[in-house]
Amino acid sequence: MRIGAVILAAGEANRFGSNKLIKEVYGVPIIRRVVSAVEGIDKVIVVGKYYQELMRILEDQVVLYNPYWSKGMSTSLKLGIRFFQDYDGVIVLLGDMPFITRDTVNRIIQSFTVDCDIVVPTHKGVRGNPVLLHKRTFPLIMNLEGDIGARAIMDKVKKICYVESGEEVLIDVDTPSDLTSKKHP
Amino acid sequence: MRIGAVILAAGEANRFGSNKLIKEVYGVPIIRRVVSAVEGIDKVIVVGKYYQELMRILEDQVVLYNPYWSKGMSTSLKLGIRFFQDYDGVIVLLGDMPFITRDTVNRIIQSFTVDCDIVVPTHKGVRGNPVLLHKRTFPLIMNLEGDIGARAIMDKVKKICYVESGEEVLIDVDTPSDLTSKKHP
Repeated sequence: MRIGAVILAAGEANRFGSNKLIKEVYGVPIIRRVVSAVEGIDKVIVVGKYYQELMRILEDQVVLYNPYWSKGMSTSLKLGIRFFQDYDGVIVLLGDMPFITRDTVNRIIQSFTVDCDIVVPTHKGVRGNPVLLHKRTFPLIMNLEGDIGARAIMDKVKKICYVESGEEVLIDVDTPSDLTSKKHP
Repeated sequence: MRIGAVILAAGEANRFGSNKLIKEVYGVPIIRRVVSAVEGIDKVIVVGKYYQELMRILEDQVVLYNPYWSKGMSTSLKLGIRFFQDYDGVIVLLGDMPFITRDTVNRIIQSFTVDCDIVVPTHKGVRGNPVLLHKRTFPLIMNLEGDIGARAIMDKVKKICYVESGEEVLIDVDTPSDLTSKKHP
């Protein structure tokens, strides 16, 4: 079973004010922490507005530049899905979630049984990320528009498989104060 | 019939000595001349060593950064084909051919009949570029390795369709002196 990883790193970071993905958490740029969580898995990182700074620290990775980044997350997601359209599933990681680990990802992949359209990690009942999309949901993704992500197809699929995970599936970096306040779960 | 365009712009330009694709011919960077030749066609530009300078003038385009650029042209070609794997055919343009026009491309596409595995433009009996690959040749491309391109599969396909074209299908920029000596055909 072949799983591809799409890392979304094309956001505008409006509330942060600058390129948050190169900021360090425990000495490692956030985007590199996310890349490490899918080490060994075929991956593509989708970049946009901040491509210059990001690519300088992603020179060992396949990177897709999305010229439509200002039109919203779905444009990046669709480009990433195109790249892995022949894979059995795609795990969609958000570039601003610094505490996702390979272990988090493994548990999600292990929960991916043949009847699951999407695997969604949860923590204490709250849906988080990354989600794992079955190949049969790809046509639904390709119809998305605007600043929406995989969440928008959740009411259109037959079966969502949930896997209880740690707090890391809910933690992202939105504002500069997040960087000093959020602790490793 | 959906045709995608892959523009190969990841080369090392060993004989040129610097990033030749941003050099201007009649006031327009070579790579932008190539992009114009496939205007209106879905395209991806594959970059490598010189990604920084190239992307600065490709911010309106979908760009794929190939981290394996030093391993040769096939690595870029394969990434581009992955992106258009569901299309009926892919036209492969070389980023250093400044005189390819939309007209050159149109003639090649018009020659693409259902029995053609590959369409190859020729000029006075000499095979040139860009070539147009039928979807059924994609698996052959995905098996290529090293610094070789579509030429390497030509002896493996059933039917090559040739279309007589202008001198532009043979002209590329290899050395700085090419820029002053080569004239618009």
